[in-house]
Amino acid sequence: MLAQNRTEQDFLGKMELPRDTLYGIQTARALENFPITDVPVSHYPELVVALAMVKKACALANLDTQVLEKSLCDAIVGACDEIIAGQHHHYFAVDMIQGGAGTSTNMNANEVIANIALKNLGAQPGDYHRLHPNDHVNRSQSTNDVYPTAMHLAILAQCKVLTIAQDQLRQAFADKAAEFRAINKVGRTQLQDAVPMTLGMEFAAFASTIEKDIAHIVQLSEDLKEINLGGTAIGTGINAPEGYSKIVAAHLSQISNYQLTPARDLIEATSDVGALVAFSSGLKRIALKLSKICNDLRLLSSGPRTGLGEIMLPAVQPGSSIMPGKVNPVIPEVVNQIAFQVVGNDLTVSFAAEAGQMQLNAMEPVILFNILQSTRILTRGMNVLRQRCVDDIVADTRHCDMLVNNSLVVSTALVPKIGYEEAARIARLATDNGCTVAEVVADLGIMTADEFAALKQQTWLAPAN
Amino acid sequence: MLAQNRTEQDFLGKMELPRDTLYGIQTARALENFPITDVPVSHYPELVVALAMVKKACALANLDTQVLEKSLCDAIVGACDEIIAGQHHHYFAVDMIQGGAGTSTNMNANEVIANIALKNLGAQPGDYHRLHPNDHVNRSQSTNDVYPTAMHLAILAQCKVLTIAQDQLRQAFADKAAEFRAINKVGRTQLQDAVPMTLGMEFAAFASTIEKDIAHIVQLSEDLKEINLGGTAIGTGINAPEGYSKIVAAHLSQISNYQLTPARDLIEATSDVGALVAFSSGLKRIALKLSKICNDLRLLSSGPRTGLGEIMLPAVQPGSSIMPGKVNPVIPEVVNQIAFQVVGNDLTVSFAAEAGQMQLNAMEPVILFNILQSTRILTRGMNVLRQRCVDDIVADTRHCDMLVNNSLVVSTALVPKIGYEEAARIARLATDNGCTVAEVVADLGIMTADEFAALKQQTWLAPAN
Amino acid sequence: MLAQNRTEQDFLGKMELPRDTLYGIQTARALENFPITDVPVSHYPELVVALAMVKKACALANLDTQVLEKSLCDAIVGACDEIIAGQHHHYFAVDMIQGGAGTSTNMNANEVIANIALKNLGAQPGDYHRLHPNDHVNRSQSTNDVYPTAMHLAILAQCKVLTIAQDQLRQAFADKAAEFRAINKVGRTQLQDAVPMTLGMEFAAFASTIEKDIAHIVQLSEDLKEINLGGTAIGTGINAPEGYSKIVAAHLSQISNYQLTPARDLIEATSDVGALVAFSSGLKRIALKLSKICNDLRLLSSGPRTGLGEIMLPAVQPGSSIMPGKVNPVIPEVVNQIAFQVVGNDLTVSFAAEAGQMQLNAMEPVILFNILQSTRILTRGMNVLRQRCVDDIVADTRHCDMLVNNSLVVSTALVPKIGYEEAARIARLATDNGCTVAEVVADLGIMTADEFAALKQQTWLAPAN
Amino acid sequence: MLAQNRTEQDFLGKMELPRDTLYGIQTARALENFPITDVPVSHYPELVVALAMVKKACALANLDTQVLEKSLCDAIVGACDEIIAGQHHHYFAVDMIQGGAGTSTNMNANEVIANIALKNLGAQPGDYHRLHPNDHVNRSQSTNDVYPTAMHLAILAQCKVLTIAQDQLRQAFADKAAEFRAINKVGRTQLQDAVPMTLGMEFAAFASTIEKDIAHIVQLSEDLKEINLGGTAIGTGINAPEGYSKIVAAHLSQISNYQLTPARDLIEATSDVGALVAFSSGLKRIALKLSKICNDLRLLSSGPRTGLGEIMLPAVQPGSSIMPGKVNPVIPEVVNQIAFQVVGNDLTVSFAAEAGQMQLNAMEPVILFNILQSTRILTRGMNVLRQRCVDDIVADTRHCDMLVNNSLVVSTALVPKIGYEEAARIARLATDNGCTVAEVVADLGIMTADEFAALKQQTWLAPAN
Repeated sequence: MLAQNRTEQDFLGKMELPRDTLYGIQTARALENFPITDVPVSHYPELVVALAMVKKACALANLDTQVLEKSLCDAIVGACDEIIAGQHHHYFAVDMIQGGAGTSTNMNANEVIANIALKNLGAQPGDYHRLHPNDHVNRSQSTNDVYPTAMHLAILAQCKVLTIAQDQLRQAFADKAAEFRAINKVGRTQLQDAVPMTLGMEFAAFASTIEKDIAHIVQLSEDLKEINLGGTAIGTGINAPEGYSKIVAAHLSQISNYQLTPARDLIEATSDVGALVAFSSGLKRIALKLSKICNDLRLLSSGPRTGLGEIMLPAVQPGSSIMPGKVNPVIPEVVNQIAFQVVGNDLTVSFAAEAGQMQLNAMEPVILFNILQSTRILTRGMNVLRQRCVDDIVADTRHCDMLVNNSLVVSTALVPKIGYEEAARIARLATDNGCTVAEVVADLGIMTADEFAALKQQTWLAPAN
Repeated sequence: MLAQNRTEQDFLGKMELPRDTLYGIQTARALENFPITDVPVSHYPELVVALAMVKKACALANLDTQVLEKSLCDAIVGACDEIIAGQHHHYFAVDMIQGGAGTSTNMNANEVIANIALKNLGAQPGDYHRLHPNDHVNRSQSTNDVYPTAMHLAILAQCKVLTIAQDQLRQAFADKAAEFRAINKVGRTQLQDAVPMTLGMEFAAFASTIEKDIAHIVQLSEDLKEINLGGTAIGTGINAPEGYSKIVAAHLSQISNYQLTPARDLIEATSDVGALVAFSSGLKRIALKLSKICNDLRLLSSGPRTGLGEIMLPAVQPGSSIMPGKVNPVIPEVVNQIAFQVVGNDLTVSFAAEAGQMQLNAMEPVILFNILQSTRILTRGMNVLRQRCVDDIVADTRHCDMLVNNSLVVSTALVPKIGYEEAARIARLATDNGCTVAEVVADLGIMTADEFAALKQQTWLAPAN
Repeated sequence: MLAQNRTEQDFLGKMELPRDTLYGIQTARALENFPITDVPVSHYPELVVALAMVKKACALANLDTQVLEKSLCDAIVGACDEIIAGQHHHYFAVDMIQGGAGTSTNMNANEVIANIALKNLGAQPGDYHRLHPNDHVNRSQSTNDVYPTAMHLAILAQCKVLTIAQDQLRQAFADKAAEFRAINKVGRTQLQDAVPMTLGMEFAAFASTIEKDIAHIVQLSEDLKEINLGGTAIGTGINAPEGYSKIVAAHLSQISNYQLTPARDLIEATSDVGALVAFSSGLKRIALKLSKICNDLRLLSSGPRTGLGEIMLPAVQPGSSIMPGKVNPVIPEVVNQIAFQVVGNDLTVSFAAEAGQMQLNAMEPVILFNILQSTRILTRGMNVLRQRCVDDIVADTRHCDMLVNNSLVVSTALVPKIGYEEAARIARLATDNGCTVAEVVADLGIMTADEFAALKQQTWLAPAN
Repeated sequence: MLAQNRTEQDFLGKMELPRDTLYGIQTARALENFPITDVPVSHYPELVVALAMVKKACALANLDTQVLEKSLCDAIVGACDEIIAGQHHHYFAVDMIQGGAGTSTNMNANEVIANIALKNLGAQPGDYHRLHPNDHVNRSQSTNDVYPTAMHLAILAQCKVLTIAQDQLRQAFADKAAEFRAINKVGRTQLQDAVPMTLGMEFAAFASTIEKDIAHIVQLSEDLKEINLGGTAIGTGINAPEGYSKIVAAHLSQISNYQLTPARDLIEATSDVGALVAFSSGLKRIALKLSKICNDLRLLSSGPRTGLGEIMLPAVQPGSSIMPGKVNPVIPEVVNQIAFQVVGNDLTVSFAAEAGQMQLNAMEPVILFNILQSTRILTRGMNVLRQRCVDDIVADTRHCDMLVNNSLVVSTALVPKIGYEEAARIARLATDNGCTVAEVVADLGIMTADEFAALKQQTWLAPAN
């Protein structure tokens, strides 16, 4: 053994660890067992903090139920507070994707907390006879209730940041809608010229659809406030004191500032991941809508000379290594790709959810990994979209006007006057002769140019309700 | 032209139709254009009825807003009522998957309604100068508001039947939970023996998880009660009378018995399919959970001699064409497959949702097709699962008991007394010596057999909260 | 019992059947057990024929190995030939999605064949003591080798039709490429104007990409020619005569006209569905590419007045129930939707593949259902796309020319002469001043208009290799 | 400006950069534009090396075609060689997910190579008038041919490592198959006892199925050897010298040791990602099969006392933070999760593939990101599975034997003697009386115990072919 190492032992044998590291033997085993993604738990600080909050709440509940001494409880709580304050994140080193249903993450937390506490008590890391990762830090708990509860908390924390990004993006679109409210343009359905609208309406719809998504994801996140802490191994609460699940939920609510409640059926809650499936589906919906919005932005800004050209996106980088002066819609493009990643991640969640067996879903780590990644990249994507694209979109009002006047869709205005079939015939004539609808109407003596202009105006402005 | 044919015409030209058919030229074109799935709209009566309800509500709103004569309104309403009563479903012949964003389905409805009305007015099918599919039946409407609204109604109708099937299945599991409440068994996590529980708890968790799914899908279906009727082509309400969207929503609410409201932003509502994406995600969640339940039923009934064998599923058919007497879990297996279909269908919905462009999502027909199929097969699958499997599941109490007594997981009960590491050592000794934990405990003089039995009893029975 | 019924019996009990039906009790049980999709096996005649071919080959191999009397073999072969000729498809009535790994489909075939044979022998349907569905028709077989083998054959048959549709579509695009070879147009990357090309090149690329897909799917289909017939229940060949797998493969090759070979590891082949997963992935690739092509067709034909407008798709139906004269790209749209369905179906196949357990994959029916549907709708979609769209696409040469001359991308031609940065500056000037690159080049005295025109011409025409 | 900074400029303006950094302004812009995943290009050294190989080949081809001076070519080649040797990976700093179709990655490479070359020429980083990232390093190239070509090379490099891992895992299963060849056990279909086999056969099937996957992925990777280098912006080869694509392919073949060929249709090859879709599908197939194998390993090792218990997996970490002595199948579990991730990633690839538009697929970065991640984690997962699980699997021969003798499936052996129905009756009797098939056979006087034992022996051992 090297001088700078210490030895720890479990029922599988001994291992050497760096003398001063604050994790222990089970973390070390996990590092060997799961060299998969290069993404450690510490990559998601929300998760590290969530684990510490859970452990703190458990220690306090153990004190309340008289299964943990005050001095040990204080030491554990102190260690957790240091983690919550961000001091020891780098010791949360195990891979996000791991076998064992999160046991390695839970033990990583138990070991780091124990060793911080030991240091604060003046003991050496690894002197677990005084304060033990399992017997004290993990007391009245199992990975099977700690890990899902920490998952819920971490996702709730991310969800807050996500919804802020959503709301700021919504506001950016709403601001543009106001700016563009008087710009007439051709509406399009199925990529074909449809009836007129304003560019403001189009951007307002982007704002509206994001607004609905905010409400949707918040609603879905509510189910994450139901936790299974106190259920221990399979939901029967074995080895937890009577009343533990309610007591610990109260502590955790106070620590986390979420109104958490114990699941009504802890057996069900221990194996079920329905709330996570639903949350991931909500992220997918956000992604699909964002992708549609970005597709629209790219279509509307296509050009500069041979596309729709109704808007111009800000140039944020040269567009081509070969074509001089080309500027591409790189920001919407990166958001499209984020959206595709989120949709793929949601499928991973689905597969993992289906793989639950009997009293547990052992695939929770990959579920958590994908939800945390999806939420983070969606948040970042929306921030980039807002700051580097939407905020600086400019309308080409002149081009919008030109397109409207040149279009055939004004024939729609004739329907209430002359019926569908006659209006269709006029549109057809304009197409065949390569002229405008206004010209055909005048030629056929149906009405004068002025009358037609007035009719058009009246039609476009009539609100539906 | 054959004597039994009639001719119709649109701006693309003439076509011959069977003299007495109640659909018209645009339906006939669609039949030629979309020979895709062999599944006509009539395969989903909920959709046919929904279309008729929408058309009836529109006719009444047109009367209210004085854009349709009373006699024509009456004729249209009468035709719709006949369809709602189920008399003309077979004329809804266009393929469920179609280009044109549902235009063919809408025109199929317009034509059938017009022709029924014409017949009732004493006219011939096709005499549209008297009552026209577009000018009268489709008045103040566009496919782009009619089709989405009908989608919502059809899915709401299906959702009702689905939740009844869910609730009956939930009750079946709850009944079994009551029946099995006193049967002790080994809980399992990660397919490894965990701590004891009762078979009743296991089945109660199936009931609980379905109960949560019912609430979830009902909540998601609420968003379908927001409709875009009155938005016409792109949500601006062009060609619809003032106030139309509110008036028609009121009529449709009364006709359908759902509290429907016009979307706040009709532009957004015309292109957005978020409520459908969310509903489909809800179906996916139901599917994933059902699949997990069926996997559990198959695991628990594995055997008959070399599996877990805790329960026996009823035999519903010989299991093998080669192995005599083999009985297979064919009902859970078919439900697994239904679940996989639903998950795949949800992906189709996702792709279609992402493909919306500007003021419309032209891919709505494939979204509708998949949601209707998923809801229907989930409903049927749950009914079959209940009637041909769950209701007749029998527990093998003796085998459950034997497994519990033979297991090592009873060592968990020792943790509060002797600590985690010592308990682990005892479990290890039992494994190494091929004996029971009770025997090791007695051998080591830790406690007598009676004391250990009492400790076990006390531990299993202590509820968590 | 009604006079028109007959009774059959298995080890689960008795059932009444219509006297003259040619299926038997196990089919009847399956009809009750699996009322799921409304799609019977007969919906896919390729599958019915494949089952009959397998059964015929097995009977002949049984004769060869002296485990079946000549007279019974003849009777079975005769019955199979009638089915292959299409006479009894409607008796293949069980649902495509079924539990039991295809047992119901196999027994449906066994029973129909037995009863046809019995009739031909002058006996009554159901008189199985003379010729038994299991003991004779299914002799030396198990569902677990019959069903996968029939799956392979059915898919191979469909694949032939699919590749014909692919090749015809490829040819249609190639024909258009020839027609459009001299039409200059702007190439576009990221929806932004890039460098010039010809419309012929663009359509030739559609042909090329389909050509690659044909080779790809044919290559993937090769693995389907490896069959597990002779492996019986789990691949050990239990109850099959020695050498059976080779003998039966030879017969089946002759009957089916495919060069089939027995799998080298029959145990593996009995549980593995890798060849089906790969084939479904191939269908997905076809779908994704088709969808991209259809998106391009819709983009290129967007307009008529405010889109790209480089091509015009044929009008196949009126485009709008409200907007007169609107014509939509309904054929590409329906192909997009078919593509989305195929991608979703592929996911269902993935889930089902992952669900195989130990010596069998019980989810094969849903795999088969999805592959058969995907192949069929892709075939139909490509036929419709060719006949009702591609064949009649017209180019707007004048508009293409106008766009090219107006674009900035000609500045690319300057790079070899004046460097990237200077060329970029010129493009920028043209943008800022709203003029053409040719004008800037002349203004700055870089070269004359004629020199620039010559440079352009030379650049566009230089082939890369 | 700080003393330690330098300034660079492009047509969008100026930026300050750290004086000594070897990337330039476009990399710096990309770092600001795409703060998405925290995963830089350097996370995949295969990609960095691939980019350098492409740039080296292009410089040599530029020299051959006399569009680049010898001294500049030498400087570029020297810089590329340093990168290939691994010296500058950390400067490849742009995010793997980026807008712009890979332009930022290409420019990152161009800038780093230019600056290394400049340093080696005695100039300062950023003195691009001497050697320019675009005019010299990127000469005769576009992102649109460089990036796809580098993608192909990077994936080919990974594929090599993947197939080594596959082959080693295959060998590990084959070794176990040899070790277990004489262990009789019950085969299982649909989780129900089927007919006997050996444990060796079961493990040999794992080896076989991996062997087929190796051949499959190698076959799919062949298409990656077709490259579009020389096509430049859209495949027309604009700004590349005549014959460039063939010359550069020859150089790159020599540098990379792959036999690369230019695509026959460079236009098609520039926008198509079919080879990537197919490769990703191949990874999905590997993942699905691995997941099935891991499910089997977990089922077969379920227990220790109440599961199937036929094999024991090595213990690699304590299994539970609450249940002493519990050992879980954590290695198969992590591989299951890897598989789910790969399946999700494949969906992301599908979405991105479908999003290609006209002459380019701008979503290539997310395609590459997912394929590289999938290949890497699959490789790692298979290595862990082999080293920490399969190599140390132990069979419980005694338990396997006990299960066989106790099972009912031996009745299958009777079918050839007494027919299916009678054999089924006997199995039923054994079930009803809770005894063995051997006992029923003896009781009924069908044959003696010895005769039955002999029949059994003969049946199990008869190979199918």
